[in-house]
Amino acid sequence: MNLILLGDRVAIKPLVNEEKTKSGIVLSGQKKENSQQAVVVAVGQEVTMQIKLGDKVVCSNYAGTKIKLGEEEYIFVTQNDILAVIDEVRS
Amino acid sequence: MNLILLGDRVAIKPLVNEEKTKSGIVLSGQKKENSQQAVVVAVGQEVTMQIKLGDKVVCSNYAGTKIKLGEEEYIFVTQNDILAVIDEVRS
Amino acid sequence: MNLILLGDRVAIKPLVNEEKTKSGIVLSGQKKENSQQAVVVAVGQEVTMQIKLGDKVVCSNYAGTKIKLGEEEYIFVTQNDILAVIDEVRS
Amino acid sequence: MNLILLGDRVAIKPLVNEEKTKSGIVLSGQKKENSQQAVVVAVGQEVTMQIKLGDKVVCSNYAGTKIKLGEEEYIFVTQNDILAVIDEVRS
Amino acid sequence: MNLILLGDRVAIKPLVNEEKTKSGIVLSGQKKENSQQAVVVAVGQEVTMQIKLGDKVVCSNYAGTKIKLGEEEYIFVTQNDILAVIDEVRS
Amino acid sequence: MNLILLGDRVAIKPLVNEEKTKSGIVLSGQKKENSQQAVVVAVGQEVTMQIKLGDKVVCSNYAGTKIKLGEEEYIFVTQNDILAVIDEVRS
Amino acid sequence: MNLILLGDRVAIKPLVNEEKTKSGIVLSGQKKENSQQAVVVAVGQEVTMQIKLGDKVVCSNYAGTKIKLGEEEYIFVTQNDILAVIDEVRS
Repeated sequence: MNLILLGDRVAIKPLVNEEKTKSGIVLSGQKKENSQQAVVVAVGQEVTMQIKLGDKVVCSNYAGTKIKLGEEEYIFVTQNDILAVIDEVRS
Repeated sequence: MNLILLGDRVAIKPLVNEEKTKSGIVLSGQKKENSQQAVVVAVGQEVTMQIKLGDKVVCSNYAGTKIKLGEEEYIFVTQNDILAVIDEVRS
Repeated sequence: MNLILLGDRVAIKPLVNEEKTKSGIVLSGQKKENSQQAVVVAVGQEVTMQIKLGDKVVCSNYAGTKIKLGEEEYIFVTQNDILAVIDEVRS
Repeated sequence: MNLILLGDRVAIKPLVNEEKTKSGIVLSGQKKENSQQAVVVAVGQEVTMQIKLGDKVVCSNYAGTKIKLGEEEYIFVTQNDILAVIDEVRS
Repeated sequence: MNLILLGDRVAIKPLVNEEKTKSGIVLSGQKKENSQQAVVVAVGQEVTMQIKLGDKVVCSNYAGTKIKLGEEEYIFVTQNDILAVIDEVRS
Repeated sequence: MNLILLGDRVAIKPLVNEEKTKSGIVLSGQKKENSQQAVVVAVGQEVTMQIKLGDKVVCSNYAGTKIKLGEEEYIFVTQNDILAVIDEVRS
Repeated sequence: MNLILLGDRVAIKPLVNEEKTKSGIVLSGQKKENSQQAVVVAVGQEVTMQIKLGDKVVCSNYAGTKIKLGEEEYIFVTQNDILAVIDEVRS
């Protein structure tokens, strides 16, 4: 399924942080949604800001519309709802 | 009956998902409205975005005005209420 | 009485559906107002959309101001409150 | 007392309908304010719409500011609060 | 004390009506503030409407900010809060 | 500490009136904040109105943001929140 | 981690004041967040006002969105939420 986003909309998927113990063991069954960080999965044609597919971005918890398509849940925001892009390469 | 939509309005009809068992058997009497996906049935003359008759689109549950015409129920939204077009061919 | 509508206002009268049995018999005393469909009875001089006297139109139930003039009740809306014109000839 | 209305304001006085029996007898002491019809008593210099002194107009009950000057009560509206002019000559 | 009003502000003082009996006797101790009529005591430099010092004006009761300076109480409104100027000479 | 105000902001400090008896004796311990009069202590670079450092101004009680910096409390308003400058020299 | 701020956003970190006794002894365990003063840690590309990385700024307590990234908590505001820059060098 391909999403054609309209206007300045951006579709994102919240990042899920696996909880680890300090020694690095993943505690299964304890995934925790970190709703303020997300990955960009679709970008509208009128998005003029510096936002690309695959970007890890920061959003307010309260922005956007949750949409379930098939088994996946997306959040549709406008570009102004995205506060920042996290640039992990450059940091 | 032909609808001439005014301004940037779009008339949509919610998609109804038949519930199937995993083996593909349709469970009649268990139709479920999937109110976030819809098909475009009429488009106003001032709609400038990429929305055509027959498009399968994604909308917020809370957008638009429900109107019953004859036996059919439509939702009238503006083009800005449509979040995305689902492109099933290209996907 | 002649109404000169100001600005982009449109005066409409709700359509009243007579209830019929399936065989076509009109059940008097059971008229039911269908408040979402209406007929245009006056059009302001600044109305730029495709709305003419006598048009059958679709409106939200919640739009406009109800005004009683003599024995008749009108609803005064602006052109943006009208969602669509129902074109019965062309359909 | 002369009122110089500012901006696009219009001062109106609600019409009072005398209640009559069907045979035309006026029932004194039963005057009833018909707050949706009014007569224009002053017009601001920036009023651009078709509104003149003495016009009988239609207004929403909820528009404007009631002001008592001497013994008289006026309603001050802006030109956009006036829905229509009732043209009794032409009708 | 001299007030330099900023923007399109106007400072007014509510008129106080002395209550008189019909024969014209002033009943002292029964002054009544008529908060809808006021006198203009200062006018901002960006006031473009027909409002001058000393004008008797009509305002809504709910407009503006009450400010006490020394012993005097003023109401600071913007020019749009003033509904009309009462022209007693010409009337 | 030097404040560089951004945009059209103005920092003010409320005037404190010492209460005096009629004979002019200051009653210590009875200072009273007169929150509607204030002195301008900093002016943003985009302030275009007639407001200078040291001006005594009139403000609504409800305007602005109270900020404590060190031991001092300031109110940050925008230039539009200032109703008037009190010109004591000219008065 | 590098933050690329979008639009006119500014990321700030609230200043934490260590409480000291008058003789200058730091009372550990008594850090107090002074939420009205903050340091600028990232600036969006459309920020046009006089705000630079490292600036100590004054903000309302109620502005912006709190975001936790890793162990650090940031507040994302727009440039208009910043009331003033505190210039400690020049003062």
